Amino acid sequence: MQSNYPVALTRLIHHLMQLPGVGPKSAIRMAFHILNMPEKNVADLADVILKAKNDIGFCKNCINLSEDEICSICDDYKRESAIVCVVESPRDVNAIEATNEYNGLYHVLHGLISPMDDIGPDDLHISELLDRIDASPIKEVIIATSPSIEGEATAMFLAKLIRPLGIRVSRIAYGLPMGSDLENVDEITLGKALSGRQEML
Amino acid sequence: MQSNYPVALTRLIHHLMQLPGVGPKSAIRMAFHILNMPEKNVADLADVILKAKNDIGFCKNCINLSEDEICSICDDYKRESAIVCVVESPRDVNAIEATNEYNGLYHVLHGLISPMDDIGPDDLHISELLDRIDASPIKEVIIATSPSIEGEATAMFLAKLIRPLGIRVSRIAYGLPMGSDLENVDEITLGKALSGRQEML
Repeated sequence: MQSNYPVALTRLIHHLMQLPGVGPKSAIRMAFHILNMPEKNVADLADVILKAKNDIGFCKNCINLSEDEICSICDDYKRESAIVCVVESPRDVNAIEATNEYNGLYHVLHGLISPMDDIGPDDLHISELLDRIDASPIKEVIIATSPSIEGEATAMFLAKLIRPLGIRVSRIAYGLPMGSDLENVDEITLGKALSGRQEML
Repeated sequence: MQSNYPVALTRLIHHLMQLPGVGPKSAIRMAFHILNMPEKNVADLADVILKAKNDIGFCKNCINLSEDEICSICDDYKRESAIVCVVESPRDVNAIEATNEYNGLYHVLHGLISPMDDIGPDDLHISELLDRIDASPIKEVIIATSPSIEGEATAMFLAKLIRPLGIRVSRIAYGLPMGSDLENVDEITLGKALSGRQEML
């Protein structure tokens, strides 16, 4: 990008271009927008960025994003603690919560098994899931990974691991179109897929 | 946006959505990207945002963005200081600089006359331009505002103001964009291209 903008502006543009989906043109638009924002709002923007990074960690129990040691879902005594829904990412937790169809707990793997990308079971938070199963009376594990190759492989792997422990393992129903992304599915489809889950035998 | 993300994350998403061209989905993608960035890079991002806002002001002479009192273009003794190109915004300066066709100075109006938006000549940096004409031996003012209604109105206004001072006032040429198709160009542009034809020598 040829530019004779002030150094501080060029640097801002380059940093904005590191964000996903931001090309040179949008980075320039955003940078100028930031320059034109009131000083207080710019300070707020910088602050929320730092705060988000500093304050947000992972729930010790379900590995979902959390500002506290135990997240608000795990900490909610009104939820069915005997059911655990296993998902790929915190975004999926949010998507399922939005359906209002589910009242159990979650477990976030933070990835899927993907030999192509050199991601094996040990790279996911599976041992924490086994620890939970060991420590608390879990009756059912719902595997809600995406219906992609990696999601299926992860589901199979988990089912093989957990079924022998005498726990019901179910898979989110195939109401989802194959090859889609869990987080982009509309809430009704996702809700149907949850309620129509099938036991993995 | 329904969300059970941690407060710090929701706040970050909302702030990112204030940026131009950023909807909820991209804000979420960006926010997660930021959460996954190394701590140092996040600190850098927050820092460049603050730095850009704090360090960048306007050149006293041409009102272009500048970290110094006088910008690097006005300060460059190799440039033709007798020619001033008047533009709407700092982005236009950058666009013209990228052509490598221009070696004079600039004057940034920071807007165009637009009665619809209640922007009159007094809202633009026109008095500073007149001060410059008064103080230095300027021979030509090139008006390079966009060929829009507002750009034209501003050009007319400036021409009427500056021509009586005995200074040559020119307007950037209208014509066909390079690489365009004659049949796809709108009639007004084509008409302007015809009437503004140049002798081939």
